[in-house]
Amino acid sequence: MNQITQDKRMNDHKTDFDPLRDVQAGGGPGMRSFIYGHLAPEAFPIADLLAACEQSLREDGSLALQYGPQQGYGPLIDYLRTKIEHDEGLSLGREYLTITAGCAGALDAIARLFTQPGDAILVEAPTYADTLHLFRDHRLRLFQVPIDEKGLIVEATAQRLEELHRAGERPKFIYTIANFQNPTGVTLSVERRKQLIDLVRAHDVRIIEDDVYRDLRYEGEVPPSLFALDESHEAVIRVGSFSKILSPGLRLGWVTAAPQIIERMTNCGLRSMGGGDNPFAAHVVTAFCTRGLLEPHIARLREIYRARRDAALNALARSMPPGVTWTQPRGGFFVWLTLPASLLARQVIAAAEQRGVTCLPGDLFFAEGGGERNLRLAFSYLSPADITQGITALGDAIHSLNG
Amino acid sequence: MNQITQDKRMNDHKTDFDPLRDVQAGGGPGMRSFIYGHLAPEAFPIADLLAACEQSLREDGSLALQYGPQQGYGPLIDYLRTKIEHDEGLSLGREYLTITAGCAGALDAIARLFTQPGDAILVEAPTYADTLHLFRDHRLRLFQVPIDEKGLIVEATAQRLEELHRAGERPKFIYTIANFQNPTGVTLSVERRKQLIDLVRAHDVRIIEDDVYRDLRYEGEVPPSLFALDESHEAVIRVGSFSKILSPGLRLGWVTAAPQIIERMTNCGLRSMGGGDNPFAAHVVTAFCTRGLLEPHIARLREIYRARRDAALNALARSMPPGVTWTQPRGGFFVWLTLPASLLARQVIAAAEQRGVTCLPGDLFFAEGGGERNLRLAFSYLSPADITQGITALGDAIHSLNG
Repeated sequence: MNQITQDKRMNDHKTDFDPLRDVQAGGGPGMRSFIYGHLAPEAFPIADLLAACEQSLREDGSLALQYGPQQGYGPLIDYLRTKIEHDEGLSLGREYLTITAGCAGALDAIARLFTQPGDAILVEAPTYADTLHLFRDHRLRLFQVPIDEKGLIVEATAQRLEELHRAGERPKFIYTIANFQNPTGVTLSVERRKQLIDLVRAHDVRIIEDDVYRDLRYEGEVPPSLFALDESHEAVIRVGSFSKILSPGLRLGWVTAAPQIIERMTNCGLRSMGGGDNPFAAHVVTAFCTRGLLEPHIARLREIYRARRDAALNALARSMPPGVTWTQPRGGFFVWLTLPASLLARQVIAAAEQRGVTCLPGDLFFAEGGGERNLRLAFSYLSPADITQGITALGDAIHSLNG
Repeated sequence: MNQITQDKRMNDHKTDFDPLRDVQAGGGPGMRSFIYGHLAPEAFPIADLLAACEQSLREDGSLALQYGPQQGYGPLIDYLRTKIEHDEGLSLGREYLTITAGCAGALDAIARLFTQPGDAILVEAPTYADTLHLFRDHRLRLFQVPIDEKGLIVEATAQRLEELHRAGERPKFIYTIANFQNPTGVTLSVERRKQLIDLVRAHDVRIIEDDVYRDLRYEGEVPPSLFALDESHEAVIRVGSFSKILSPGLRLGWVTAAPQIIERMTNCGLRSMGGGDNPFAAHVVTAFCTRGLLEPHIARLREIYRARRDAALNALARSMPPGVTWTQPRGGFFVWLTLPASLLARQVIAAAEQRGVTCLPGDLFFAEGGGERNLRLAFSYLSPADITQGITALGDAIHSLNG
């Protein structure tokens, strides 16, 4: 592919940095930032997306720019059906899919249409901080269940459900990021996936499966989705996204779920008023994907992010003092550090920022507390060289506090 | 401007019509549809938008495709500040604006962040049906206040507020479309705007001003916005949109409001997760607007839609039997018919559809009932010739029922 690499404004050192124009990598000018799971800036397929814009506008401009169908653009739904059949062996009718304004728009619609303020939701401890924020905007009450290196602990989930039932709480959903979880990078094992499906069927609770990292595996195979394992497709609402595999700026994702869920998401006031979510972006992405460009692009992204993951894990192995441990992500954007009992994450970050490197403290990722000795490192945005230097500086910071 | 007119799939007669691909003008194949306020398909500035895509991707692709700032893209906010200063004489800092996913995304965010289920909202009778739908998705309770040819009746609003207060209700918002209202086309008079501001200040209720038709005036001047008349900018949240003046498929709008409102909209979970609303579309629209292309485009749209409005009003004057009355919109997309006491709207539409023409019945636009003898005609989408023929057929249908 012909890539045009453009990153002029990415340099935080420049004096006219504008926080409403330039990339918000976090941490301020001159900082190596592991804060956000931003995409590798040099990996955007700019020339191919421009060609897709041209095709969409020249061949179909008056449709791409008009109000669209509320369920989403049919040819994109059809492309996704083909992709899901190829990747997961699932043959889905159009009535099982809808196009959304990214994963964020999907989760917001699920909260708006299928919950009420005060409803209980089970989340992983830790989980994606912005999902906690989004659910809290809808005034949902969040209860957490621990995870380990095999993902959500199903036995603990069952216990928590039973405790909540005894207290008169009937959780509406269990929110899980089963693949290459944000913030830990861990993946839910196949055995636990099957147990979790059995559990939610027994307890009349649905799963929201945030599956946005599925395509970004750097080794091995991705386990079958919870959505696929639930053959009835009644127990799982699965959310996918083009944000990690193409561009977050296009704000495009999708949901696979039972037809009655898709129908309610389609026939809401927001979609009725707007003519579906992001029709123009949907046309552009359809043009890109139906030219066969997404699959080689994903293959290229796997190479790029695998190299960053490897740089992060190698630097951690070299730089971290004894007592610091971390996860071994097989995909996705994140690695999760656990500090020894003598250190607090926010203390480490303060020392690291003095050495020009920053990341997020673990406590942001817990609904009910925890994470005071954890750090999340996003390795997607920085170059391998910056990752190596940044983690070396982080190691120095921890050494300085240990000493 | 170099326009590429593309409307191949607009022909409802074709046999492979796909409801998830082709324009949903409503009414099915072969029908002249006055149902939706879709944009004139031949008026999209396709070549200029393609150039804007090219500029955005080539000059700034890795920013346009990345997560964006939560408040919205600064250069677009700055363009809007210039436009608002030019159009309305208002000098606003960036802290008074935020970029949204169209008017729909703005209204959804307002409902999500500033209301609770069960809150009371005052709406015009009639008002935009999709806003009723959107508010109901948020479980808001809607109370209506009549309008006349000068817009919302302020005295009736005051009475309704006092009745509600006596019943223990404290409405959170009054939702008004003050310019070229959907569905009636009427415009709120300047005197009433001032009275309405005084009223809401006295009653501690805020106005949501849906101002998406402001630029589409076909004669005279647009009155000052409620947002401008409220010099404190505390009482009014004003919503604008590129959907009517450029493209609804781009899903881009804005809000002008007090800084604490903008800040809450900026710092919500949806924006935090998504990196603002529609960053790529914001870059494209910025490139289009900062080339100076929006103002001449709006001037051209005024010509196109004025001709459609005139075709509609002329055909109504020629075709309607005595006893039918209609509004005289000075802008926007809609004309509102009132049938004589002997006729019901749904009966008229059934007869009209047998003559190949359709529109929406008035009852859809009322929160608490009414409109059984009203029709909304959207004149934005059909050509002047189709408008003339469609309204002639509608007149025939009414005549046939009268006889």
